[in-house]
Amino acid sequence: MKNVLLIILLLTSVQLFAQKRPRELGIKIGVLPTGQYNAITDVAGVKVGQVTLVEGKNIRTGITAIIPKDGNLFQQKIPAAIYIGNGFGKLTGYSQVEELGTMETPIILTNTLSVPTAADALIDWTLNQKGNENVRSVNPVVGETNDSFLNDIRGRHVKKENVLEALKKAQTGKVEEGNVGAGTGTVCFNWKGGIGTSSRKLPEKLGGYTVGVLTQTNFGGVLKVNGVPVGEELGKYAFKESLDKSSDGSCMMIIATDAPLDARNLKRLAKRAIMGLAETGGIASNGSGDYVIAFSTAYQIPHETTQGTSSVTLLHNDFVSPLFMAAIEATNEAIINSLFMAKTTEGFQDHKMEELPKEKVLEIMRKYGRLK
Amino acid sequence: MKNVLLIILLLTSVQLFAQKRPRELGIKIGVLPTGQYNAITDVAGVKVGQVTLVEGKNIRTGITAIIPKDGNLFQQKIPAAIYIGNGFGKLTGYSQVEELGTMETPIILTNTLSVPTAADALIDWTLNQKGNENVRSVNPVVGETNDSFLNDIRGRHVKKENVLEALKKAQTGKVEEGNVGAGTGTVCFNWKGGIGTSSRKLPEKLGGYTVGVLTQTNFGGVLKVNGVPVGEELGKYAFKESLDKSSDGSCMMIIATDAPLDARNLKRLAKRAIMGLAETGGIASNGSGDYVIAFSTAYQIPHETTQGTSSVTLLHNDFVSPLFMAAIEATNEAIINSLFMAKTTEGFQDHKMEELPKEKVLEIMRKYGRLK
Amino acid sequence: MKNVLLIILLLTSVQLFAQKRPRELGIKIGVLPTGQYNAITDVAGVKVGQVTLVEGKNIRTGITAIIPKDGNLFQQKIPAAIYIGNGFGKLTGYSQVEELGTMETPIILTNTLSVPTAADALIDWTLNQKGNENVRSVNPVVGETNDSFLNDIRGRHVKKENVLEALKKAQTGKVEEGNVGAGTGTVCFNWKGGIGTSSRKLPEKLGGYTVGVLTQTNFGGVLKVNGVPVGEELGKYAFKESLDKSSDGSCMMIIATDAPLDARNLKRLAKRAIMGLAETGGIASNGSGDYVIAFSTAYQIPHETTQGTSSVTLLHNDFVSPLFMAAIEATNEAIINSLFMAKTTEGFQDHKMEELPKEKVLEIMRKYGRLK
Amino acid sequence: MKNVLLIILLLTSVQLFAQKRPRELGIKIGVLPTGQYNAITDVAGVKVGQVTLVEGKNIRTGITAIIPKDGNLFQQKIPAAIYIGNGFGKLTGYSQVEELGTMETPIILTNTLSVPTAADALIDWTLNQKGNENVRSVNPVVGETNDSFLNDIRGRHVKKENVLEALKKAQTGKVEEGNVGAGTGTVCFNWKGGIGTSSRKLPEKLGGYTVGVLTQTNFGGVLKVNGVPVGEELGKYAFKESLDKSSDGSCMMIIATDAPLDARNLKRLAKRAIMGLAETGGIASNGSGDYVIAFSTAYQIPHETTQGTSSVTLLHNDFVSPLFMAAIEATNEAIINSLFMAKTTEGFQDHKMEELPKEKVLEIMRKYGRLK
Repeated sequence: MKNVLLIILLLTSVQLFAQKRPRELGIKIGVLPTGQYNAITDVAGVKVGQVTLVEGKNIRTGITAIIPKDGNLFQQKIPAAIYIGNGFGKLTGYSQVEELGTMETPIILTNTLSVPTAADALIDWTLNQKGNENVRSVNPVVGETNDSFLNDIRGRHVKKENVLEALKKAQTGKVEEGNVGAGTGTVCFNWKGGIGTSSRKLPEKLGGYTVGVLTQTNFGGVLKVNGVPVGEELGKYAFKESLDKSSDGSCMMIIATDAPLDARNLKRLAKRAIMGLAETGGIASNGSGDYVIAFSTAYQIPHETTQGTSSVTLLHNDFVSPLFMAAIEATNEAIINSLFMAKTTEGFQDHKMEELPKEKVLEIMRKYGRLK
Repeated sequence: MKNVLLIILLLTSVQLFAQKRPRELGIKIGVLPTGQYNAITDVAGVKVGQVTLVEGKNIRTGITAIIPKDGNLFQQKIPAAIYIGNGFGKLTGYSQVEELGTMETPIILTNTLSVPTAADALIDWTLNQKGNENVRSVNPVVGETNDSFLNDIRGRHVKKENVLEALKKAQTGKVEEGNVGAGTGTVCFNWKGGIGTSSRKLPEKLGGYTVGVLTQTNFGGVLKVNGVPVGEELGKYAFKESLDKSSDGSCMMIIATDAPLDARNLKRLAKRAIMGLAETGGIASNGSGDYVIAFSTAYQIPHETTQGTSSVTLLHNDFVSPLFMAAIEATNEAIINSLFMAKTTEGFQDHKMEELPKEKVLEIMRKYGRLK
Repeated sequence: MKNVLLIILLLTSVQLFAQKRPRELGIKIGVLPTGQYNAITDVAGVKVGQVTLVEGKNIRTGITAIIPKDGNLFQQKIPAAIYIGNGFGKLTGYSQVEELGTMETPIILTNTLSVPTAADALIDWTLNQKGNENVRSVNPVVGETNDSFLNDIRGRHVKKENVLEALKKAQTGKVEEGNVGAGTGTVCFNWKGGIGTSSRKLPEKLGGYTVGVLTQTNFGGVLKVNGVPVGEELGKYAFKESLDKSSDGSCMMIIATDAPLDARNLKRLAKRAIMGLAETGGIASNGSGDYVIAFSTAYQIPHETTQGTSSVTLLHNDFVSPLFMAAIEATNEAIINSLFMAKTTEGFQDHKMEELPKEKVLEIMRKYGRLK
Repeated sequence: MKNVLLIILLLTSVQLFAQKRPRELGIKIGVLPTGQYNAITDVAGVKVGQVTLVEGKNIRTGITAIIPKDGNLFQQKIPAAIYIGNGFGKLTGYSQVEELGTMETPIILTNTLSVPTAADALIDWTLNQKGNENVRSVNPVVGETNDSFLNDIRGRHVKKENVLEALKKAQTGKVEEGNVGAGTGTVCFNWKGGIGTSSRKLPEKLGGYTVGVLTQTNFGGVLKVNGVPVGEELGKYAFKESLDKSSDGSCMMIIATDAPLDARNLKRLAKRAIMGLAETGGIASNGSGDYVIAFSTAYQIPHETTQGTSSVTLLHNDFVSPLFMAAIEATNEAIINSLFMAKTTEGFQDHKMEELPKEKVLEIMRKYGRLK
């Protein structure tokens, strides 16, 4: 396609990596330890791939793909659940995941009006996988937030090949944050938002499981960083002046875990992400699409089987609470990470969204005894 | 796109109209009277538009568009609710309708793998409407069933222009049934299924409201026509021989009413459609995507308003039961209509699906005292 | 309380057993075979105990207890789910069953205003079981329908000892139907309703599992017996004359199965009971409390464990559809059984409710070719 | 009943009023102003009545009654909704409130095993109200938390007359907090919990509405007071040492508002209370029963009407976000209030639960720059 001018700003992404994550700056959210990368990819096998579309003055969008596990996900489905915190959004794939307790595609995050394109691409991707020659039904899972302040969203600049490229680029290990992929044009607490990720690794006595979270942040409220009233101190928060819609937006939250949870307990885990969002000062405003997709990598469920029954090892209800706490902490930190890693961005209609003024924030954190 | 070879078989549609609906044949389902057309369009203002894609040996699919009301639906939203009977399906648009209690686009029905295309077309349609120049968020509502037995579903032959054409063709009055639109390639109770519609007009003493239903039938079970065990008599029903998946499939059910219901009571109304499906012998099998979308045309809710509050006239809970009964009856009859109006079809991979043998069925109906 | 004058009319119960069940009369609902007793007790281990309170002119009520399994249910919980068809009712115990996927007490059915008494009795029963000396939390599951037409419901004549007696009397095997236990004073389709039960035993090729249903019938609509329009023929059906509330009421439906389902699939199974109710002509009117409690006896979940994980054998989604069909058929038949087994009853305020005129009904069944 | 020895410790309650609420101590949670009493009773017409049962060594429990409005609530129902954050609890009354969107009794809070007693008392209370002589169905709404660490819960010491007394004592204005009513024996964050209340009054530009919250706190996590990590500083938080169940428990949250919301928007408002709980460090652990009941006093819905329709003034979706923020802030503060107002308590089996060490907490607050 000749007129697709997508520029993946390598320079930008180098810069992104050059920025410091809050934890490196001394901001330690929660009481549980993180995994190796403090990322969703700390759950073994999880891969993230992102394509950033920045072009001219108007295109500031992208795709973030999360692949739960290698192999043919349609043939070997992933236990999953989706919790709808506030449903003003366009997530697709909800009902089948809820009915069957499984997910059969990777998850794609993008902008609001590109959900159909991304869904279509996920169908392509699935139909074209080896072993899926006879597949005639696919339930693509696509989430979104609305980046229309910075991005010409009506132009629908995401193309199927961008989505497929994000899937192809997906890898384990470090995950880019901030203005990247589906977070390229998002706005959070009236600062530049983006992609953020974090994880928790439970101590062995609590089960030893890992919970990883990835967020696409595009919402509002009264920003708190590790409990510190940063929003108030910076003089920028919801309804300060009037009944505007600046607190609208959305937050997509993806939770991965290697704990052997069934769909019912994954749904419960998903509900806790909203509690992490609440700790950042989010209010799940009327206009917010706050969705949590939780999946487990502990086992897979075959698409077809001649065996009526099979045996599965599951965690007892009594042991899920530490996972809940891990999900809350990791969601909180993933959101804060997205803010710290995002960069000031100009875009559509000359709109400009400032990044969080990190120096000032650190000063505030110090004032509130949260940084040495 | 000029090289789309879609052939709307006028001949076929003439034949369709030539067939007789069950009620004309003396099969009277339920105790409540129908509306004028015995169709969803008996609810004033509701329009239906269908595009049938029949091409070569392999393409047997289409689009059915339901427009609740004239005018700009995005700016003047429709109270609505969605009930998920069994969620093995790909309906898109669920969560926003549920959260806000409103629908902001027409409803499109199509095949499983064409949902993204149809959603994309609905976005186009909405963005391009006069007055929507600044709209940057659209919640397209698209339902589907899987027509892959008769249709080359992997080829995704539905194009955006087909969807837009269905919207353009939408009209009040008579509605085509059987092998038409989204019902072109569907299969129901192991006979050729399709589109069916029916309505009920409550007597004045029960409120005088109209309830109209349109169904896209593609499911299985043990067929009963007005309570008569037609499936058993014809020797064709679910699990007769083995644990096959012939009862899988799906049913999309759309309910329109002019009764002033809010989203809560529309959800309750929607739940009753499954009871009408049950009366036809449907079992909502594991593989079925059984969704009901209910909307009211009695009032509209503005997209934006400077008034915090507004006054709305709503029906009291005590008065909804006759509407429930109307929805059950009309869903039952709409499904039976789809079967009577469908025609034997050959398609993908030389698959052939016979139409319901009407002569035999009428004989069975007579045997069971249901026809004079 | 010494002056409780509860008279269990042995004579009446002998008569009840003397009446014929529809299947004995040649009415064969559905295509699947029944279990041995055509009762919920066909699921091995399930026990039913009933206490009938008939005293003077005004007391026509009672208790029906369903015990899923012998032993200490609190310590070894039962996988369970509850589906709310229409929630105008006072069922207690819902949220914990839904959250944890387990039930820890038997199920008690009684009248609307006696739910607290029955819940209190279940707490007693549980606290007093050997091994529960340290139990400090109990989730009693109690359902109800409103028998106030025939019973002095405001008098709250059910006492804790009645509930405990029903639990004590619970046994496997044959189950009394009609005017018994919680069905003593109920009304269904404007005829005397009551307790009804039925079961289906799947052929081995479909898994060989048993599904048993017990219903407490107290609702309205347009009665159909095996598809035959009995309500219309008898000239008695909802909204025939006016917008009355005669179709209000409720139906409690209990489903037992030995299939190894988890809570998610039990919920799906529960949803199908409403489809069986629909086949009898029920409409789930506004004033109806239609609840389905489904449980599996295939495995139990320990209250406490030091093991984080355990292995459980579960049925794959692909194999649940025959169970769905079984639940639909058995619910349909259980409701019809309750009507055929109930007897004309006089009670509170000289109200009288006629039993279904069986002779006439059989004649109608013959007219419609449903009886030889 | 001769052996009811309930001692309402007037002395204690005097002391309770002598303690200082956090806001008086300079702890200002959130950005919105409070109402006059900073209590649920700031919503005009709402009354709270509490009965505290402290007797001997073992009885530490009670009742808290919330009456939404004067008059006959059964005849003039209150729009309401219930959100289940985590359903490990015994709340009764859920399904009817959800189905009909209305509440027809006051709300009673008590201990886990006394729910049936309280429900029974609510039925008495309703049946005996003038105008309810023919009422034969009542949906009592009762919530609970488990106070069995300090209270002999198995003894079920709450009696119907205690509940009726709480209803009788209910008044507007100041609300007692801490060890009072249903909070007498509760434990929160491993400190003595209890009853807490708070409110927010929106500025006129945001609608001018009041949101009041009352909480019964009995849960765990990692305590944060206005964002300050008090739990960590005091060395007491969930899973610090091991996988114990100290974070289990429950939180009942009641939200009142005078904003004209329907049941759908009340449900959304209710969901936000969990976000306030999250800000205190609650994690909604597996064993927690976290329920939110939200109601509006803006209008009432008649039990019976001959009019099919009526006109109601409702708030547009776009204007609810400030109410959401108010609910979050008020829930957070109500929980913190309960902790500050509770007193060290000894009870059942010589168990002792320390109150939050206020001096130390204030010191920690100062350390973290949250107190001058």
